[in-house]
Amino acid sequence: MPKKNTPKLRVISLGGLNEVGKNITVFEYQDDIIIVDCGLGFPDNEMLGVDLVIPDISYLEKNSSKIKGIFLTHGHEDHIGAIPYVLRTINPPIYGTKLTLGIIENKLTEHVLDSKPQLICVKPGDTVKAGVFSVEFIHVNHSIADACCLAIKTPVGMVIHSGDFKLDLTPVDGDIMNITKLGELGNKGVTLLLCESTNAEEPGYTMSEKTVGASLENIFMHHTDKRIVIATFSSNVHRVQQIINTSEKYGRKVAVLGRSMQNIVRAAHELGYMNIPEGTLIDINEIKRFRPDQLTLVTTGSQGEPMSALYRMAFSDHDKVILDSNDLVVISAHPIPGNEKLVNKIINELMKKGVSVFQDNLIEVHVSGHGCQEELKLMHALTKPKYFVPIHGECRHLMQHRDLALQMGMSPENILVSDIGKVIEVDKNGIRFNGTVPAGKVLVDGYGVGDVGNIVLRDRRHLALDGLIVVVATVDIEERTVISGPDIISRGFVYVREAEELLCTVKEIATDALWDCLEDDITDWTHIKNRVKDKVSRYLVDKTNRKPMILPLIMNV
Amino acid sequence: MPKKNTPKLRVISLGGLNEVGKNITVFEYQDDIIIVDCGLGFPDNEMLGVDLVIPDISYLEKNSSKIKGIFLTHGHEDHIGAIPYVLRTINPPIYGTKLTLGIIENKLTEHVLDSKPQLICVKPGDTVKAGVFSVEFIHVNHSIADACCLAIKTPVGMVIHSGDFKLDLTPVDGDIMNITKLGELGNKGVTLLLCESTNAEEPGYTMSEKTVGASLENIFMHHTDKRIVIATFSSNVHRVQQIINTSEKYGRKVAVLGRSMQNIVRAAHELGYMNIPEGTLIDINEIKRFRPDQLTLVTTGSQGEPMSALYRMAFSDHDKVILDSNDLVVISAHPIPGNEKLVNKIINELMKKGVSVFQDNLIEVHVSGHGCQEELKLMHALTKPKYFVPIHGECRHLMQHRDLALQMGMSPENILVSDIGKVIEVDKNGIRFNGTVPAGKVLVDGYGVGDVGNIVLRDRRHLALDGLIVVVATVDIEERTVISGPDIISRGFVYVREAEELLCTVKEIATDALWDCLEDDITDWTHIKNRVKDKVSRYLVDKTNRKPMILPLIMNV
Repeated sequence: MPKKNTPKLRVISLGGLNEVGKNITVFEYQDDIIIVDCGLGFPDNEMLGVDLVIPDISYLEKNSSKIKGIFLTHGHEDHIGAIPYVLRTINPPIYGTKLTLGIIENKLTEHVLDSKPQLICVKPGDTVKAGVFSVEFIHVNHSIADACCLAIKTPVGMVIHSGDFKLDLTPVDGDIMNITKLGELGNKGVTLLLCESTNAEEPGYTMSEKTVGASLENIFMHHTDKRIVIATFSSNVHRVQQIINTSEKYGRKVAVLGRSMQNIVRAAHELGYMNIPEGTLIDINEIKRFRPDQLTLVTTGSQGEPMSALYRMAFSDHDKVILDSNDLVVISAHPIPGNEKLVNKIINELMKKGVSVFQDNLIEVHVSGHGCQEELKLMHALTKPKYFVPIHGECRHLMQHRDLALQMGMSPENILVSDIGKVIEVDKNGIRFNGTVPAGKVLVDGYGVGDVGNIVLRDRRHLALDGLIVVVATVDIEERTVISGPDIISRGFVYVREAEELLCTVKEIATDALWDCLEDDITDWTHIKNRVKDKVSRYLVDKTNRKPMILPLIMNV
Repeated sequence: MPKKNTPKLRVISLGGLNEVGKNITVFEYQDDIIIVDCGLGFPDNEMLGVDLVIPDISYLEKNSSKIKGIFLTHGHEDHIGAIPYVLRTINPPIYGTKLTLGIIENKLTEHVLDSKPQLICVKPGDTVKAGVFSVEFIHVNHSIADACCLAIKTPVGMVIHSGDFKLDLTPVDGDIMNITKLGELGNKGVTLLLCESTNAEEPGYTMSEKTVGASLENIFMHHTDKRIVIATFSSNVHRVQQIINTSEKYGRKVAVLGRSMQNIVRAAHELGYMNIPEGTLIDINEIKRFRPDQLTLVTTGSQGEPMSALYRMAFSDHDKVILDSNDLVVISAHPIPGNEKLVNKIINELMKKGVSVFQDNLIEVHVSGHGCQEELKLMHALTKPKYFVPIHGECRHLMQHRDLALQMGMSPENILVSDIGKVIEVDKNGIRFNGTVPAGKVLVDGYGVGDVGNIVLRDRRHLALDGLIVVVATVDIEERTVISGPDIISRGFVYVREAEELLCTVKEIATDALWDCLEDDITDWTHIKNRVKDKVSRYLVDKTNRKPMILPLIMNV
């Protein structure tokens, strides 16, 4: 048992465990707190109408005076997307590399904040002092440029936070993950490794980004007669760079479609992360000056997003581009779980138009940004941590990553599979769970942050399934008489014209229930409403086997 | 051009093209019609609250006197599921093999029909005369026993309808697909092949069902200390048979969970499709008499269905079974597109309980029931059709199947990629499209068939996204005065307690709008309601960036 008063390092994930996205990890030692990443998640199917999910940061708000900084590993939404929201209540310095901060600045233009954010640009190799902590940024490969893992020096020893990473031995920018530095840290002694688990179930190594370049080149070489349209993630700067390089080589102009793609290409170009040969990039309005075989279009929509440029082109709803059998579409991405049907819908629609479609099931037009099992093992082998906590993934990924660590020879008691809000304590004597802090999902819907919760979602689900019946009436409760109505209004329940008879009976039933109440001298509103609701509901279940939401609106004069 | 008055064979798919499921094909020659299969589809994400999708059969209703029979290839829902619904308006003889009809009889017990269905049992090898047609049932392998393809003799030549099939050279029941018969038909001359396209994108051959048996045996051999729980499709009688065989070999009793699994096991056993050793099958209530390592549980829920036995066990909501680290769960199925997240949810929940989970990404615990590219090519090679129409699949599958036929040497003009409702005409002179008949999706919601359409679904989507605001008031329009209200009721929009201020302002805005109308002498109800709706809507978009459905209910005394 540890001594009571020995100070301890507390490691708390407020997101990213037993879920995908919303990554945020808190490191606390006495009066100092640092935060690694601050991402958003996407709503699941049950969260109807919700736009985004952000972490519950009430623990940080309560301890805001302790916070010495937010350290960002890279510029993906699931690592930085909650920044504009948390800046409403806390405002510590934010450290990140140039592209990461560039993307944040772009996002912040859409938000109004009380105080000016403190964005501090760092380079891989830099070390930042923050209270008792000092944090070194170490270059890794990933599907966005300028990604880092973090070496965090703490009073209980070195902690490595992997961020998201893969090992790319032929990266597009020539800059290989700094495995030497990680090895050196490992040799000096690493107390704790927190490592991402996204691809923990995938055997082997992730392919190099350059294999995608080779596949694209193959497509460009064999389809010199068609316009080539490539959909990919806008943040994958190296992918877009390869598309531009290949287009230039094959004498094609490149036009960029979709707001986020245009934003990122502009930002990456301005910040020096992209090398665009003079005259290659053209405006979408200029495409009519060129033949199809002289053009490449780079577009958003690789996840089938219904408002994206690719979706609109597929469904003939784009004002600048009409696709037909002169087009070849490459989906340079793999659908995120849950998006399969959306992507499928686009592919089917394109094929109906006679468009040729290439996808990653046929040819290597996409590689993951996350390391597979061998790369995760490499991280363990380099850092040789005393303790290990798998992060970033659903339970199945965390458990599989735990299995990998066991295969590497770790003892089970040195591995903790945690959950959001659980406090992990580390000191010279060991690692253990000790209590919890508040953690969860805060839902963002429109401008509202946190005003949609379980009750609202339950009502939305109810309305979505069977719609709504409103019973509206005015009574004079003193006179025990109905003044107007009851009228029946339905939405999302049944096609009214074909169900007149049904709704007429509902009206009769509601009328009878109402008069019965008044004749029985019932004047309690809740009682009257429940009686009407029950009678109508029972009839509808019996007749239709559906349970619409029933709203009895009984007004008194 | 064909002569005007030559009689033609008309081939019309009323479902199963450019969609998954809802398979139904109509063959018409002058005054005779036969129907092959009559399946249901499942609702897509847009069809909120819809239970099932069945084909629009108005063309068949209009021509009901011509219909000589419905011929069923096998007993899966996507081939027989619409039978109880179409029997409401047409009642031709229904031909199918014993298990297929057994499953239908089971379904029909849940439906009330005016006239008695005519179910006629056939065996593979039987030929049925139906008007000018004669239809031979030919045995194929599939993921359900007793599956057939059909050889339909017509006045314009032989037509082969593949049904769903794979070639299994080591089937569990020892009965290999009758490739000789198909080859003989091919040698005599096949005019038209309609062939399923489900796995047209998958290279190679589909593995034998027996490989699953071998994997299961492997699991049973290495996990003699745990209770084994296997989730699979209830209709896969051979899979369940293999589970029973392996359980018996390893001295385990088998209990069956889930209503559909219990129904099918009972039916298959009674009809002689299953061989259950005496004493192996036990009731679920008996499991407490045995140790975990003496038990196998076979359950529904392999697609993550939220009401299934597996789902309830995973979420500790099953009254008979509690799962823990003494359990090993095998998901003996592959998620159907769209179900990935549901299956994932169950797996994560099981892992949190310490349950071991095996799935088909780790070990071969599932094989498809549909032939891959080489088996589709085999069907073409055997039947050597003059004309070819790919069926059963989305556009991408149909187009890929077309490519396979081109690779086999067919000319493009002899292949028609059709759509539901399109009429394909075949005569001695050729094959061509000629017109369309009504076709589409009829939605089933509760007891309602067809009463949920686009308007109802649009309202459900609207309600699901942002909920509802009701503005209710009573006015005396003669006196130009408001008698009661307006009151504001919201559901699924915002958590009311935290949004009192917002809803108060809405009330003020509605009140002002209403009085403004009355003071302006506006007495047109639509005008008044629209004014209130517009004012409230504009305020809410501005304040919340959400667009709830707004229902102004203004009543006159």
